[in-house]
Amino acid sequence: MGSLGLDRRDGVLTVALSRPERLNAVTAELTEELLDVLNGLMGDPHTRVVVLTGEGRGFCSGMDLQGAEASEPSEASAEGRVQRLHRGIARGGEVTARLREIPQPVVAALHGPVAGMGVSWALACDLRVADPTTRFVLPFTDLGLSAGDCGLSWLLPRLVGSARAAELAYLAERLDLDAADRLGLVTRRAAEGEDLAEAHALADRLLAKSPYGLRRTKELLNASLDAPGLRTQLMAETSVQTLAFFTKDLAEGMTAALEKRPPDFRNL
Amino acid sequence: MGSLGLDRRDGVLTVALSRPERLNAVTAELTEELLDVLNGLMGDPHTRVVVLTGEGRGFCSGMDLQGAEASEPSEASAEGRVQRLHRGIARGGEVTARLREIPQPVVAALHGPVAGMGVSWALACDLRVADPTTRFVLPFTDLGLSAGDCGLSWLLPRLVGSARAAELAYLAERLDLDAADRLGLVTRRAAEGEDLAEAHALADRLLAKSPYGLRRTKELLNASLDAPGLRTQLMAETSVQTLAFFTKDLAEGMTAALEKRPPDFRNL
Amino acid sequence: MGSLGLDRRDGVLTVALSRPERLNAVTAELTEELLDVLNGLMGDPHTRVVVLTGEGRGFCSGMDLQGAEASEPSEASAEGRVQRLHRGIARGGEVTARLREIPQPVVAALHGPVAGMGVSWALACDLRVADPTTRFVLPFTDLGLSAGDCGLSWLLPRLVGSARAAELAYLAERLDLDAADRLGLVTRRAAEGEDLAEAHALADRLLAKSPYGLRRTKELLNASLDAPGLRTQLMAETSVQTLAFFTKDLAEGMTAALEKRPPDFRNL
Repeated sequence: MGSLGLDRRDGVLTVALSRPERLNAVTAELTEELLDVLNGLMGDPHTRVVVLTGEGRGFCSGMDLQGAEASEPSEASAEGRVQRLHRGIARGGEVTARLREIPQPVVAALHGPVAGMGVSWALACDLRVADPTTRFVLPFTDLGLSAGDCGLSWLLPRLVGSARAAELAYLAERLDLDAADRLGLVTRRAAEGEDLAEAHALADRLLAKSPYGLRRTKELLNASLDAPGLRTQLMAETSVQTLAFFTKDLAEGMTAALEKRPPDFRNL
Repeated sequence: MGSLGLDRRDGVLTVALSRPERLNAVTAELTEELLDVLNGLMGDPHTRVVVLTGEGRGFCSGMDLQGAEASEPSEASAEGRVQRLHRGIARGGEVTARLREIPQPVVAALHGPVAGMGVSWALACDLRVADPTTRFVLPFTDLGLSAGDCGLSWLLPRLVGSARAAELAYLAERLDLDAADRLGLVTRRAAEGEDLAEAHALADRLLAKSPYGLRRTKELLNASLDAPGLRTQLMAETSVQTLAFFTKDLAEGMTAALEKRPPDFRNL
Repeated sequence: MGSLGLDRRDGVLTVALSRPERLNAVTAELTEELLDVLNGLMGDPHTRVVVLTGEGRGFCSGMDLQGAEASEPSEASAEGRVQRLHRGIARGGEVTARLREIPQPVVAALHGPVAGMGVSWALACDLRVADPTTRFVLPFTDLGLSAGDCGLSWLLPRLVGSARAAELAYLAERLDLDAADRLGLVTRRAAEGEDLAEAHALADRLLAKSPYGLRRTKELLNASLDAPGLRTQLMAETSVQTLAFFTKDLAEGMTAALEKRPPDFRNL
């Protein structure tokens, strides 16, 4: 794929945004390629963990505003400027949604700038590894934009609470690694240049867990945020958990626990 | 009751899970006894505070997986394995729901293992006292289970935020007292073996508060999490607060504040 | 206005609760005056930031319980005691709702007591500056009242999480500046007596941001809390963001960023 680097190793799919000459600025082409990958993961039993990173000096510098979107479309274009801009932004948000909807846990490996749309994508991942060069940049109100961008206004209050969300979004703050860590946005700190290696180490830990357990946990944690109340969530949880008792992996997990050895889960 | 120890003292009901030989592993019998107690509290004007603890070396080691659920039911059984497992898990979740729905504040007194279903029950309580032996254990994905268990997928994001919830749930983490405290899961730390005494001290502080005020505060904080928006919640709050002005306890509270003495509330 | 001090300077409206002889205790008159101001801001393109403070030694001491509400209305009154109390409380909650619904960011400048209804109003603001004399006082359950007061039961769990919300509300806690800061309730700490100056400094930073960006960010962050799910929020965000591309301020913001100079936004 032109704008992405893909690497499959055992059950781990590593997806790298790959426009390093532009700090992985997001074009329509990159977005569509990424959505193809994510859509394919929805029904993929082989891939058990996803790692999302960026090639070169940064994770992602946000939407490529020097690209085609800034200019007037030609007469022969299939759509006007309103339509094209709306589509570009909507598809960036679709990536955010899909990162949460795919059943595989996603680990972000972050370094350098994590900016604009890149912030939403990084925060939509389940876990985040970041190295000391990482800086989250939310430039929206300095550019004339809203921080309601590709799901950011939904993710941020759920990750850092309403008060910090307002502060970061209004003031167009930059967060270095320490600031992001204090806000709980960083799952693991890595040494400089080691974010991808550290993310793979975390992915290996996830590979040792029950695939059924992990996938249903991700689905239920996400569903929980939209659930109209505890009792609705309990109903969803109960059937999911009962089903686990009819998998072979549960017997393996129980036996391994009694025998004090690591389980050997096979998604059976 | 066979699986519970109950102690009533003034307005405080202390409920102890009482299968210490099994670290208070949860059986269907224990769950039903606990639900009987909680259902009785729904309309009980005498009990003003509940303390929930576990006898022996730990609070609760989770569902008793070596019990009847693991074996095939006999032909003469009233239900099959699907039905029995579904019921067992659903009833464990019913305890979580009832701990939140009873009008009395619930203080958990924690020590030793707080595992599996026991985590959900501990987190469903309003306040938590824990001693240094306490460890929260979320073994689900190591066993082949989902961490969506008895309300955990609903409680955890609301207590520690979405990012930490995913980390704890996916990685099957253990949390010692310091780690749990950093995440805001511990209301008061107790010295070793003093969690129940400390929980009773907290219960005594709650006994000095207005029973009407406490009960409505608990109901409204819970309702707030499911409210479709601020204005719906404001409507609920307004009638509850107006009603307080027609209680004798409000006059007592106001007078006591002016006279700078502790109020003597009588639930009148 | 009798109970408020208003000061307009450039795009900043400073609103001071102005009953210092009563520590800015809230009367029906003060509430109605404040609602007039807030309602006027809903469609006001000139005011870009609001600062809310209290004159004298404290921000607000809560509802004025020694006022008319405590006594029996006369026969000639337009309403009975139930009706009058219900209205007084509901209108206090209306202030909370309006502080969030006006499109302008609101900065609270806090010092001295922030009590009762004053807590809800302070927490409904977007950002909070507080000096070392500040103390948040939630006396409800000591007075015979519920902490479900003017939106507090809705705001508190969203700002400090469910566990701390219950602790503060049940135990009628007082929070000094350090305690409030640890809970994330304070955006900026000010030196003693400098909370208003510091709030104006923060307001100046907000004045330099895009007005369209700020207003839409505030609306979307609030809408996010009530959104039934991420995809609903994404739909709202996408149109808002697309619209920004048709403002002159976006071109100014982009140009200023490229030229590494501060943007000059004109709300065009």
